[in-house]
Amino acid sequence: MIDAINYENKKLIIIDQTKLPVDLEQIELKTLEDCYNAIKTLKVRGAPAIGVAAGYSVLVGLREEQVTNRKAFDERFKLVIKRLASSRPTAVNLFWALNRMEAVYNANPDASPESMIELLEAEAILIHKEDSVICRRIGETGAELLEDGMTVLTHCNAGRLATSKYGTALAPIYVAQEEGKKIHVFVDETRPLLQGSRLTAFELMEAGIGITLITDNMAAMVMQQGKIDIIIVGCDRVAANGDTANKIGTYGVATLAKAHNIPFYIAGPISTIDYEIADGNGIPIEERSSEEITKGFGKRTAPENVHVYNPAFDVTPHELITGFITEKGIVRAPFDENLEKVR
Amino acid sequence: MIDAINYENKKLIIIDQTKLPVDLEQIELKTLEDCYNAIKTLKVRGAPAIGVAAGYSVLVGLREEQVTNRKAFDERFKLVIKRLASSRPTAVNLFWALNRMEAVYNANPDASPESMIELLEAEAILIHKEDSVICRRIGETGAELLEDGMTVLTHCNAGRLATSKYGTALAPIYVAQEEGKKIHVFVDETRPLLQGSRLTAFELMEAGIGITLITDNMAAMVMQQGKIDIIIVGCDRVAANGDTANKIGTYGVATLAKAHNIPFYIAGPISTIDYEIADGNGIPIEERSSEEITKGFGKRTAPENVHVYNPAFDVTPHELITGFITEKGIVRAPFDENLEKVR
Repeated sequence: MIDAINYENKKLIIIDQTKLPVDLEQIELKTLEDCYNAIKTLKVRGAPAIGVAAGYSVLVGLREEQVTNRKAFDERFKLVIKRLASSRPTAVNLFWALNRMEAVYNANPDASPESMIELLEAEAILIHKEDSVICRRIGETGAELLEDGMTVLTHCNAGRLATSKYGTALAPIYVAQEEGKKIHVFVDETRPLLQGSRLTAFELMEAGIGITLITDNMAAMVMQQGKIDIIIVGCDRVAANGDTANKIGTYGVATLAKAHNIPFYIAGPISTIDYEIADGNGIPIEERSSEEITKGFGKRTAPENVHVYNPAFDVTPHELITGFITEKGIVRAPFDENLEKVR
Repeated sequence: MIDAINYENKKLIIIDQTKLPVDLEQIELKTLEDCYNAIKTLKVRGAPAIGVAAGYSVLVGLREEQVTNRKAFDERFKLVIKRLASSRPTAVNLFWALNRMEAVYNANPDASPESMIELLEAEAILIHKEDSVICRRIGETGAELLEDGMTVLTHCNAGRLATSKYGTALAPIYVAQEEGKKIHVFVDETRPLLQGSRLTAFELMEAGIGITLITDNMAAMVMQQGKIDIIIVGCDRVAANGDTANKIGTYGVATLAKAHNIPFYIAGPISTIDYEIADGNGIPIEERSSEEITKGFGKRTAPENVHVYNPAFDVTPHELITGFITEKGIVRAPFDENLEKVR
């Protein structure tokens, strides 16, 4: 499959994920506003992919305005970082990637604009390459939990489309498949934006993995029926104590998992852990437009002027989490201690 | 508001609920197949409304073929009952209403076709009127649980559109409003067919009751935030031990309610209790077309040929139920004993 994010000949080209599964369409992001909008409107999405895209977006934003003196460059750099940082508030990978770009910038106060851009480009490519390597490691770690014939439930999309190559939550499934294990996946459709039915179903079917698509409110019933062996989801931001922000609905799945004694794992790179935030209360939760719920697919499905609550994420308390599948192995409770060890 | 089901001048006229909330459109059901399809495709839906519609549908089916001799009438009657009974398998009210019509038929072996139709018409009207009275009583019973300023969560639509006048799950809210109590309602949109956003939101807003629409997977988060005081839902079939089949997603809501110590009530008429079925295992669960999930909004939202599981109902075990709000008061545990008492 084509990668979600491609950087070639200094061009940033992404799959427009809002068009899937009907059209598999690539678009070039040519300006800072292209990049901002692509992140904001979820053309590119998934915590790690947002980080990778943010790195390259800094380059796009800088190249858009040709400046030759360092002062003008500094102003533009700050503006670019600020604009990109305002695109989505919850995913920590966005800020993490922008911080890495800023660190390179800060470390080279005397570089010319031209060489600054070269240094920043190298960093953006490094972020991207590291992400691929990390996802592969997450897959290897998680595959140990999967036995031939097992059934996994996942929510939202934390797969190839959300990151580089293997994904995070889906990486263990891809690696298990390579190891010859047959895994079946129940896919929550994931309202309101249907990342499960549009993206996860799409990429797993492309990979030849057997899936069953359900609406979010069927997850409880399939757990009740004993159909689910393990749950693996991604994460957008993890607090120092293990409380985890992920796509809306994750907290419900975690609560149901506990009620049915099903192991519930979070998969993600260490970079998703925000050690500055003590617990879930400190994680800002993005609220999105009511039209995602009332007019999601071209057709109005709720009365005009209906009052809507549309948080994009929820926070799963660490007590409901069996473990974190990371590039440094599986982290288990006590999370405050053990997450610190992999820092 | 217009009633969901109207019978006037021997015409059966219903609101086509598949058109809401965009169009409020009434249609006449003129033939047996009109009636069968209206129930099958959810133009008329909600357990009590299906019962009321089934009673009138028998008349429509009989009048469609003008027969003068009793033998031809008997054959037609059996065919009509059989066809209607095959429209939807889970809602017990369908069979309950058809049984009542059959009882009238069986009690009058010597009546002419003409007078049989008159007797059956009287029974169908009685079923309808009784339903109104029962819903009002359910509302009065349930309103005792509601205090001024409380917030209710409901799932699917068990309101005016699902029954006569007050509804079942929404009846306590309407009666509480009449009593001057201000109640706020969180409405689950209820995938796949969105009865919550299309119907419950519509009728509560029409009645001037404050609501907040959420996707199903947000219910856990609003419970976590302490926003919900009580949960009231309807029911499609209740087993003798209290296990309850209701719209898919209800079991998940009930499990989440328990995890958050929120009282979880089922509202419905005694006629929804199927005393012939010992527990939830005996309740047949209708599975519906995969396109409800993959093309629900007019636009394809999942890959072609994706494998889908689409049960229309789930079963909530009686242990998760705080009580049943019925026309004979609130029934509490032990349910096997106490449901028998209201038989």
